[in-house]
Amino acid sequence: MALIVQKYGGSSVKDTDRIKNVAKRVAEYRQKGDQIVVVVSAMGGGTDNLIRLASEINQVPSEREMDMLLATGEQTTIALLAMALHSLDLEAVSLTGPQAGIMTDEVHAKAKIKNISPKQVYNMLDEGNVVIVAGFQGMSPDGRITTLGRGGSDLTAIALASALEADLCQIYTDVDGVYTTDPRVVSKAKKLDEISYDEMIELSSLGARVMQSRSVEFAKKYNVRFEVRSSLNNNPGTIVKEETDSMEDVVVRGVSLDENQAKVTLVRVPDTPGMAARIFSALAVGAINVDMIVQNISHGSATPATDISFTTDKPDLLKALKVIEGLRKEIEFAEVISDEDIAKVSVVGVGMRTHSGIAAKVFETLAAGRINIEMISTSEIKISVVVELEKGKTATQQLHDAFFPVEN
Amino acid sequence: MALIVQKYGGSSVKDTDRIKNVAKRVAEYRQKGDQIVVVVSAMGGGTDNLIRLASEINQVPSEREMDMLLATGEQTTIALLAMALHSLDLEAVSLTGPQAGIMTDEVHAKAKIKNISPKQVYNMLDEGNVVIVAGFQGMSPDGRITTLGRGGSDLTAIALASALEADLCQIYTDVDGVYTTDPRVVSKAKKLDEISYDEMIELSSLGARVMQSRSVEFAKKYNVRFEVRSSLNNNPGTIVKEETDSMEDVVVRGVSLDENQAKVTLVRVPDTPGMAARIFSALAVGAINVDMIVQNISHGSATPATDISFTTDKPDLLKALKVIEGLRKEIEFAEVISDEDIAKVSVVGVGMRTHSGIAAKVFETLAAGRINIEMISTSEIKISVVVELEKGKTATQQLHDAFFPVEN
Repeated sequence: MALIVQKYGGSSVKDTDRIKNVAKRVAEYRQKGDQIVVVVSAMGGGTDNLIRLASEINQVPSEREMDMLLATGEQTTIALLAMALHSLDLEAVSLTGPQAGIMTDEVHAKAKIKNISPKQVYNMLDEGNVVIVAGFQGMSPDGRITTLGRGGSDLTAIALASALEADLCQIYTDVDGVYTTDPRVVSKAKKLDEISYDEMIELSSLGARVMQSRSVEFAKKYNVRFEVRSSLNNNPGTIVKEETDSMEDVVVRGVSLDENQAKVTLVRVPDTPGMAARIFSALAVGAINVDMIVQNISHGSATPATDISFTTDKPDLLKALKVIEGLRKEIEFAEVISDEDIAKVSVVGVGMRTHSGIAAKVFETLAAGRINIEMISTSEIKISVVVELEKGKTATQQLHDAFFPVEN
Repeated sequence: MALIVQKYGGSSVKDTDRIKNVAKRVAEYRQKGDQIVVVVSAMGGGTDNLIRLASEINQVPSEREMDMLLATGEQTTIALLAMALHSLDLEAVSLTGPQAGIMTDEVHAKAKIKNISPKQVYNMLDEGNVVIVAGFQGMSPDGRITTLGRGGSDLTAIALASALEADLCQIYTDVDGVYTTDPRVVSKAKKLDEISYDEMIELSSLGARVMQSRSVEFAKKYNVRFEVRSSLNNNPGTIVKEETDSMEDVVVRGVSLDENQAKVTLVRVPDTPGMAARIFSALAVGAINVDMIVQNISHGSATPATDISFTTDKPDLLKALKVIEGLRKEIEFAEVISDEDIAKVSVVGVGMRTHSGIAAKVFETLAAGRINIEMISTSEIKISVVVELEKGKTATQQLHDAFFPVEN
């Protein structure tokens, strides 16, 4: 008898038919004799409706009250899923995040899980129940309802799997697993059987929409092996796990495309110590997420100056420009240039550590396709380039073809 | 500085405009320096939508899961009302029933409040907040979410007013208060300035739709004086309180009409001891609410038999008939007659105890209007009659005219 944690996201429970479908899948596992804990998100449209109601009342709603409001979304799903399991003659009970013992810090809207007291969940499993837990939510030390922010339900599932020492953690989504690249962009994309936490983290933070990187980071920290798979078929998914030696044989694990970033360049920033620190701490104070940062050598002799570029999420661009303008009183830069029409393409793989020439192959491939590279940033296991937005998909295809040649 | 508990029902918070309206009203009181605890119901249509979702999944949903589901309704309202108060620059925090310390028994769907631990509410009031509490819900001893059943939010407000020793408890609704009869039926109906708990209980259980009688019974038990008033204007409402001597000067407090009952008659039931007990305990086991019961003298000599009639809520009629059919094996009655086309009209007033002739006046009034009386039932402070459904409104008008003559 195994203990399995399954997580179903918003698209898997978006209406009552999908909820019944989830119930059938849970029942198949349960009837094999396994103990099942199910973590669910809010129904697709429900959250949007709650946000609309809030915006009708207050343009800047308190985060405490937004958490109180949004937590009703998962609470609705858990009750409905329990009813659906009852219809299949299975014993099932639902628990809100606080009831399931998911304790967080006090930071509303993006709380961190501090610990889980799984006593209630264990008791209910022992009574023969499928236990359904509301994802995305928890309780602060003083009893307030908190939410975990984007990707929170994945986090709930992985944290529960860790606390319960589950035998298996399955993250159900609307795709079959993790692909070498987005199958909507490159039809020849291949599903990966396995991927390391680090590769998954890079792919997640680089725009692959399967999972938020924080959940994978959590899984890595507590060494929770999990499977990403589809709630719409029975195909095996992708196992995400600790790195093994054999993984390094595969040089490139995947190619990702992120069309949701914008680029900002400060032109002719005085090249004196502390400039970068001043700029990026101001952006951090403004809660602006900065991804790539590029600074090159300085020019000029009397007053040496350099150009500093960074990328940020498109929705944050205006805020970022405002912060930068606010710095003018203290930093004398020539001008600010911003560009929303960019795409970031990344090549990821732990094998890069031991294989050389990957960067060169990336640049050669793009050159052969006459695609201009605007920015380059690398880490130990990834190479990212910024190109024109309209070239993003072509660049992704060409890099995928280069690293994953089709076998004849 | 007074401590005021205000309760706003579903129609007062049915959309975001109404919620903003409630916030303005709360703000007016708060700005006078009073401490305010607000109890709210779910938004009108929200509950219907949740019930529809549940019915799509399971025709007989578990009561535990229905409570989990329905509790999201009030949770949505409390968060939105807090946001609306923030928009008016007031400090406000929301609390679910469990967070507010409302402890109930374990009976889902119609839990009873066992006690209230108001520490959290006090703390938040002391910090200068308007405290918004979700009505209708509480927590069982083992941590499950329970709901209090019909009229539950009124009960929450009155129980909180009692636990907090509030100076004032206001039940806001969409009518100006308690009337001598339903103003939709009798346009000359007059609003009452005050009414005793017992009169209010009788009127409530007799079909006056202002409040459920259990909330008034609770208020009577803990001697919580409260005011029923409109959330749509500033008219003073009706004070519901303990009986005073001067109340007996008013012989009749109100006339109520209940068109939601059905009548069942068991014809020629053997007139032997224990028959009524057998019949009505079977109905009680079937959870069928019985209101009026009438049994008259028996006829026949060899095997004396009598007719027993009772009324029940129309939706319970089929269930009641099924229970009665089930009794055939043990009780030999001739036949069962049922009638859905009835109306119950009641005249209520504590003054009846000291004034005679009220029953006679009721019967004379109906006789003058050529309205046939099918059943009669009386208590110390009320007289109820059953008439044909289509005569119900006319009977109500005529009795109102008789007991509340228009002053010229």
